[in-house]
Amino acid sequence: MGKPVVLRLGCIRFGQQKWEEFSKTVDLIVLDDSMTRAEFLKLLQDPHSKLENVQIITRTFLSVNQTGRFDKEIAEALPASVKAIVHTGAGYDQVDVEHFNKRGIQVANVPDIVTSATADNHVFLLLGALRNFSSGHRELINGNWEKKGAGCSVTFGHDPVGKTVGVLGMGGIGRAVVSRLQPFGFEKFIYHNRNRLSPELEAGCQYVSFDELLKQADIISINVPLSKATRHIIDETAISKMKDGVVIVNTSRGAVIDEQALIRGLQSGKIRTAGLDVFEFEPKVPQELIDMPQVLSLPHMGTYCVETWQKMEEFVVENAINMIEEGKVISLVPEQKNEAWIKEL
Amino acid sequence: MGKPVVLRLGCIRFGQQKWEEFSKTVDLIVLDDSMTRAEFLKLLQDPHSKLENVQIITRTFLSVNQTGRFDKEIAEALPASVKAIVHTGAGYDQVDVEHFNKRGIQVANVPDIVTSATADNHVFLLLGALRNFSSGHRELINGNWEKKGAGCSVTFGHDPVGKTVGVLGMGGIGRAVVSRLQPFGFEKFIYHNRNRLSPELEAGCQYVSFDELLKQADIISINVPLSKATRHIIDETAISKMKDGVVIVNTSRGAVIDEQALIRGLQSGKIRTAGLDVFEFEPKVPQELIDMPQVLSLPHMGTYCVETWQKMEEFVVENAINMIEEGKVISLVPEQKNEAWIKEL
Repeated sequence: MGKPVVLRLGCIRFGQQKWEEFSKTVDLIVLDDSMTRAEFLKLLQDPHSKLENVQIITRTFLSVNQTGRFDKEIAEALPASVKAIVHTGAGYDQVDVEHFNKRGIQVANVPDIVTSATADNHVFLLLGALRNFSSGHRELINGNWEKKGAGCSVTFGHDPVGKTVGVLGMGGIGRAVVSRLQPFGFEKFIYHNRNRLSPELEAGCQYVSFDELLKQADIISINVPLSKATRHIIDETAISKMKDGVVIVNTSRGAVIDEQALIRGLQSGKIRTAGLDVFEFEPKVPQELIDMPQVLSLPHMGTYCVETWQKMEEFVVENAINMIEEGKVISLVPEQKNEAWIKEL
Repeated sequence: MGKPVVLRLGCIRFGQQKWEEFSKTVDLIVLDDSMTRAEFLKLLQDPHSKLENVQIITRTFLSVNQTGRFDKEIAEALPASVKAIVHTGAGYDQVDVEHFNKRGIQVANVPDIVTSATADNHVFLLLGALRNFSSGHRELINGNWEKKGAGCSVTFGHDPVGKTVGVLGMGGIGRAVVSRLQPFGFEKFIYHNRNRLSPELEAGCQYVSFDELLKQADIISINVPLSKATRHIIDETAISKMKDGVVIVNTSRGAVIDEQALIRGLQSGKIRTAGLDVFEFEPKVPQELIDMPQVLSLPHMGTYCVETWQKMEEFVVENAINMIEEGKVISLVPEQKNEAWIKEL
């Protein structure tokens, strides 16, 4: 019997050493970066291609640029040998899990490792948006300080005191955001999830309905995964229910917000400022959004740091090793956990 | 006897209501914004000017643009009636206290109100510098995301994990910075002050010498007031003792750093990134510093927020009222507290 065959989609930045060791124990296939989706599909369907015995496919967020989304078409085109898709990141909205389910293919993500880095990024954007630091920074780098006077005369920001933070999505990242914000002196924290958390996990935050969150929050902190249920959860109607001058912070996925509605809300002043790490059609960002000084924007840098990235890449190897040795990935995505075929493994 | 005469230098942004009430109880003088230092000095020295009976002078950081620093020349030019200078802010380096001492004039600042807002600003800059968010933000607003790929291909930042934060100046603001940073998972906090704090105030931070702080810190967090002792405390020599790739954050006063040495340190990469709210010759900032993407810069926005600014302006009124009613300001600056003439009041 030959070595297990592993296909890696996307490049490695900091986990080289672990991947190097791993590659000695498997038959590792790495495809050309310039590959298109059509070429990838053709390769998958060619019974004599080098992919014919692939058991595990690892992928990165950016490999979507070569393969496109892991949707029904790809799920159905995979060789029968494929037993697991291992995604390098927490959010696996690029993978339509249901279609891999049908073929008995496990899907894994990287659930906890990204929590701290994403929460740090979130707090940065939240503080910056609350204080209108983006406007000040832009005026300064445009050389306007001398001309415009104190703080470059941008609109004054606000203090945490007396403000209510509304956390939409109190999973691991939402809770990490709250724990970081607790020393800053906010008035209170409210949250909305599909289900109320245990008092222990709530850590003093108050559970409210979605509408109540929109109505009460001075700052809306978005930490929900993207799914059919959360796509455009913040739309024109939701925005109309918010306080005037609300601050919105999103580090989850751009498409949880209707970006055009967000732009209109910012233009009208209904939304005072925003802190955004993610965009609906990234890396394309509407020019109006780029140009608004009241938007503190980052190019999806939530986990963009050496230590976290390395741990993510290493954890993908651990998932693959576990699959090879035990027939199961370590971090199966939640919607597969109750599948009958999984329970039989 | 007429009403007490109060001269207000600098404008009021958010504390209008309290100032309005106060102005009914005193003879409030507000000078033309276009006044120059020469005109101010002339007015002070004219025995028949409207300033002849001024008892209290309140001033803002920005009023320095009209009057210049409150130095020996101004101290000596003041009418004999002046009994107190009330500064609107924590840092009163624009006032040479010794010369006011000699004339028996009390100097007051706003010591505690600014703490939270300044610490929030500091944490924002520290997170941003650690993660290299400034580079990412600039690339994004320059429209380079599509072209440059993930995170606009800027240099990866770092996580708090394993990092030592070196706090230079553990007064109220330094301690507020530490308490905010505690949930982020840094390895340890070390600090240097002229004197070691009580264990209670240390809150687990380790006291080290100045040189040891420079040597051990991955991030140097500067929170010292500007004085003769702290001017250029971070110079070429100090920078040479730091770790390669150190991160520097300064929200105190620009002149505690030799700005030219800072620029050379950033250019060589010795200093990886910096978060700067203050500059040595602000509002003039060297173009090299403005243009460096690895510098997250703000135009002195430490207390630039509605709630804090309003409280500062209101506290100045309270100081003036206390002076009128009790003959003493509320918040005398520390170096006057042991003066014999103060103790006799």
